[in-house]
Amino acid sequence: MDKNKEYFMKIALQEAKKAALIQEVPIGAIVVYDGKIIGRGHNLREHSQNTIDHAEMVAIDEACRNLRSWRLADCDLYVTIEPCLMCAGAIINARVKNVYYGAPDYKAGAAESLYNVFNDSRLNHLVHAEGGILSTECGQIMKDFFKKARKKRKAQKRANMVEK
Amino acid sequence: MDKNKEYFMKIALQEAKKAALIQEVPIGAIVVYDGKIIGRGHNLREHSQNTIDHAEMVAIDEACRNLRSWRLADCDLYVTIEPCLMCAGAIINARVKNVYYGAPDYKAGAAESLYNVFNDSRLNHLVHAEGGILSTECGQIMKDFFKKARKKRKAQKRANMVEK
Repeated sequence: MDKNKEYFMKIALQEAKKAALIQEVPIGAIVVYDGKIIGRGHNLREHSQNTIDHAEMVAIDEACRNLRSWRLADCDLYVTIEPCLMCAGAIINARVKNVYYGAPDYKAGAAESLYNVFNDSRLNHLVHAEGGILSTECGQIMKDFFKKARKKRKAQKRANMVEK
Repeated sequence: MDKNKEYFMKIALQEAKKAALIQEVPIGAIVVYDGKIIGRGHNLREHSQNTIDHAEMVAIDEACRNLRSWRLADCDLYVTIEPCLMCAGAIINARVKNVYYGAPDYKAGAAESLYNVFNDSRLNHLVHAEGGILSTECGQIMKDFFKKARKKRKAQKRANMVEK
């Protein structure tokens, strides 16, 4: 495993942990240009109540503002979970060079699971995509989050029954 | 043709015209809930230098803020041109009910041209999508825009040659 990729994925994981801390589905992303992080984001959808606020979109938004350009050519994006259609589309539209992700998303992933849009030569930009970077850690934080959420819901249900 | 759909598409076309006026690729979109327009947007990518600022995304962003919800269930989205992967993904993520669009986008459309993501039963939400609403008008404003842009580029080229 490329040490550099692990280094940056660990930073994306830190972003994912920030999401977990505020009870958001723990996904984190960063955009890297010339070895520097120019965009960071974690999932904020529940807090902002905005559909668009997936980790990748927040990171892309910041990167565009930092570079003052909608083109993120020669940029790499690291994200802990395989991107969905919206985020993959944004990555293509932004002309991102490389996407590195951690764990696959079998229900909504657009890089390998349901679609493989980064490799679609009909589109005007191809993205090199590579999954499996710190896959276990990236997947585990999601599993822990959903396990905790289920436990909380069960406890709540029990409490409601006692009240009745 | 449903008069109601034409009525709302005309408003999306007004948005597209706003984009043309500021030299943006003329695409417009609106989000409608319970007969009311709760989100409007036109393409702003060049002005904002932000990849995300397609017409549909701007309209969805406003609609989420107005409803204070990332879920746009029971909302309809009207857009002058077939949505790209990013925008189609956002429409699915937002649980939009119906999408009505004008002209197809053979190079990047994700509703019929390259993909048909709205009808993908593997995803957690299906969107009813219908193209061809005021298709000629929606396509013409694009053709006019690109014709004008080509003319401008040619004139500029000639001027540069004269200068030399």
